[in-house]
Amino acid sequence: MAPFDLESYLTTQSSRVETMLRERLDRLGPAGAPPRLVEAMRYSLTAGGKRLRPILCLTFADAVARASLVSALAGDAASSLEYVHTYSLVHDDLPAMDDDDFRRGRPTNHKVYGEGMAILAGDALLTEAFALLADGPEPVRAALCRELAVASGAVGMVGGQVLDTAEDRPADLDYLVRMHRLKTGALIRAACRMGALAGGGDGEALARAQIYGDAVGLAFQIADDVLDVTATREQLGKPAGADAEAGRFTFPAVVGLEASRRMANEHVSLAIEAVRPLEGEGGPLAALACYAVERKS
Amino acid sequence: MAPFDLESYLTTQSSRVETMLRERLDRLGPAGAPPRLVEAMRYSLTAGGKRLRPILCLTFADAVARASLVSALAGDAASSLEYVHTYSLVHDDLPAMDDDDFRRGRPTNHKVYGEGMAILAGDALLTEAFALLADGPEPVRAALCRELAVASGAVGMVGGQVLDTAEDRPADLDYLVRMHRLKTGALIRAACRMGALAGGGDGEALARAQIYGDAVGLAFQIADDVLDVTATREQLGKPAGADAEAGRFTFPAVVGLEASRRMANEHVSLAIEAVRPLEGEGGPLAALACYAVERKS
Repeated sequence: MAPFDLESYLTTQSSRVETMLRERLDRLGPAGAPPRLVEAMRYSLTAGGKRLRPILCLTFADAVARASLVSALAGDAASSLEYVHTYSLVHDDLPAMDDDDFRRGRPTNHKVYGEGMAILAGDALLTEAFALLADGPEPVRAALCRELAVASGAVGMVGGQVLDTAEDRPADLDYLVRMHRLKTGALIRAACRMGALAGGGDGEALARAQIYGDAVGLAFQIADDVLDVTATREQLGKPAGADAEAGRFTFPAVVGLEASRRMANEHVSLAIEAVRPLEGEGGPLAALACYAVERKS
Repeated sequence: MAPFDLESYLTTQSSRVETMLRERLDRLGPAGAPPRLVEAMRYSLTAGGKRLRPILCLTFADAVARASLVSALAGDAASSLEYVHTYSLVHDDLPAMDDDDFRRGRPTNHKVYGEGMAILAGDALLTEAFALLADGPEPVRAALCRELAVASGAVGMVGGQVLDTAEDRPADLDYLVRMHRLKTGALIRAACRMGALAGGGDGEALARAQIYGDAVGLAFQIADDVLDVTATREQLGKPAGADAEAGRFTFPAVVGLEASRRMANEHVSLAIEAVRPLEGEGGPLAALACYAVERKS
């Protein structure tokens, strides 16, 4: 069997996501949103990135529905995930948080629009995610709102941020895994579950999406930490080895490079196993799981 | 007919709201939210205030259902409104926004927990509002999420904030009304509409809730501006005349004190007219509308 052509799949899906995001953003101005606010939201929302969360969502929706869905529902779910991911980056970059001046080679939102506007643009992105998700006749939309809110809030992403910045943080593997399960894992898991829900999946499909999302989320994070040690500055688009230099709390720092790689690979296998009944052999979900650890940036 | 005893009504309803807020907040710790985050959320959520939005929501739910509802649905709707209102205050007080050190006589969230945590606590309050609202079997929950999101986002509250801080803001009545309709009006209107929805109201009830909420929201804002001119520091719990001193953009500044009072009273009449078919003569909604302009702080 020919290996799955992930590169062309990612190109197609990314451009599908870009279109979805732009279409939804373009509705805000005519609905009465101030132009400068929409501009600040657009600046960060169209700054590129892997679009991992919306792509996982769309791929699960397609796999579960066993057809390429063009439904507004799946598009709203996918877009809402990227809105939430983007708001979290805008707020993370603020001077009171990570104080970053650049992201993906461009000045961060607050460097361009000012701190006050960056806070508001983040707030608006988070809120509009739910406006998108709740707008339509399908009864599953309330469940989608619930998935997104739980994954992004105090018991999810925001909770993970707080664990990451806690001063009395224990430097052990349990805490590291718990922190990442919340900080980045919860939203990736939600992306998979929301895709399965949008595709009309049953309880078993949801459970498989959950196992896959959990495993892939952790594998991605471990691979990120490993890449920081092994990749070049050019590959990363940011200084390599920055984590180690800053003495950051990473998987290689806690368990070493080899054990980190092994952990990541084990989680990838677990993820592939979980989705085989959904997409068969050699589908995009399996390829996306491998990509988590095989990518160069 | 004896006049409606608003004072005792407000006391009863506020304590109902306090209980609702505490019950919901108490679920976050056991669900896995970091204790320090929950503490920061609780600090601002239990700081008092009029609880106007949740009380309007509960009162509409009761009026439309023609019974005192004890449903989780109405409680979730009421609580979600106060979560969103509270997050907006926490973010507004930040140094990059209004830079306030005190609110309701207590240090603001970021003065106690630091700026980073205040940003995150606000983000979590906003997100948990939707987690509450989307959690339950009633199909109307998606519509409630949509009401709340639209009212709080780029075409609502956040949009109004941006209009308020715009540098090239025109100093005329049209802009002032438009700004307040978004900045504070949208959430008050949503409180009324969400109450009507939670109470099982039909299209007519929703339309009446909309007219009432719009009118009362504006009356409250005008009365706030008037109070700043006419009330004492003791009544307000903050320096009186602060708006005028700061040359702020207020109704008395734009149309004068008398015209402001007249506008507020006209809106109160409009509101009372709108809800008469719902609650009859002399009910709590009419009394709440009068309170908008008759209160002393």
